[in-house]
Amino acid sequence: MKTLSVESGETSHETNPENSMINGVAVLEFVLRFLAAGGTLASAMAMGTAEETVPLVSQSILLNPKFSDLPMFTFFVIANSVACAYLVLSLPLSFYHIIKRATNNSRLVFVMFDTAMLALVTAGASAAASIVYLAHEGNAQANWSAVCQQLDSFCERTSGSLIASFVSVLVLMLVIVSSAIAISHR
Amino acid sequence: MKTLSVESGETSHETNPENSMINGVAVLEFVLRFLAAGGTLASAMAMGTAEETVPLVSQSILLNPKFSDLPMFTFFVIANSVACAYLVLSLPLSFYHIIKRATNNSRLVFVMFDTAMLALVTAGASAAASIVYLAHEGNAQANWSAVCQQLDSFCERTSGSLIASFVSVLVLMLVIVSSAIAISHR
Repeated sequence: MKTLSVESGETSHETNPENSMINGVAVLEFVLRFLAAGGTLASAMAMGTAEETVPLVSQSILLNPKFSDLPMFTFFVIANSVACAYLVLSLPLSFYHIIKRATNNSRLVFVMFDTAMLALVTAGASAAASIVYLAHEGNAQANWSAVCQQLDSFCERTSGSLIASFVSVLVLMLVIVSSAIAISHR
Repeated sequence: MKTLSVESGETSHETNPENSMINGVAVLEFVLRFLAAGGTLASAMAMGTAEETVPLVSQSILLNPKFSDLPMFTFFVIANSVACAYLVLSLPLSFYHIIKRATNNSRLVFVMFDTAMLALVTAGASAAASIVYLAHEGNAQANWSAVCQQLDSFCERTSGSLIASFVSVLVLMLVIVSSAIAISHR
């Protein structure tokens, strides 16, 4: 329904190609925000629910890794949750930008928060990625062993949630650029 | 000299407060770019030259950590070097923005590259930060030991270069926001 009303709005303004282009950018931004919200939610949930119980053969203890064992994984979950909450809250105002054009100041506020969220999600994804890399490969110099040899399912889940998070980073970059384009073509 | 000519330019336009404000933002952006270039250069150099030779008491080998021992530190140095090179190359065009106002398309290109550089530097700083944290604290669950107990100078140098890199991230965020403000007040 929303898309329909937007498209009819575009048609009625076809006499002014500049106007319809802005509207196209605003619709694109709305869709990108929606995608980024989904991506951050998926990665926060995938990491937050990753768990595995493995009996160690050599010892009589159970390995039970959780995301809260490592502060970088906790930061990853928090960063993605915060970004997801912000993106969901920004959707109504983003929709308002589609129907109303002369809203430059609120767009500037968006650029500020989007930039902060981009840095936050990138930091979380990158910190978690380096831990996942270490878990897979280990490091001989520091004498850190590759723990993924015992933890297949946990490592696969965390790697998957990294992919969702890095996709969200890309989408957030596109959101910032499309915001800037919308501001410049006001 | 540059600042002087800009300030006199501002004075001659004082009849139009909007114009002088844009120019102020352009000058601010130029200064911020300069700061970010310095910050990324400092952190790349601090990490790239961090080295230490420690004789291990218990064993007859020498510990000689370098940034290239860990792929995250290598990525950190590369990311900061690339961002520094881009920022230095962007300075002439940024200066051109101070004297010429109607340059909206080149500003949009800047926003695109600045966003990419923000993500790159943040990813590098965050990946290196999680390794530095592990080196300081270790992790009991994964059985990773805190190697910083033997490597004081190396760990201090890498921690310092992280600070410079995170300051650059903050400055890059301000660059993007000031670019957006300059575009909106065209």
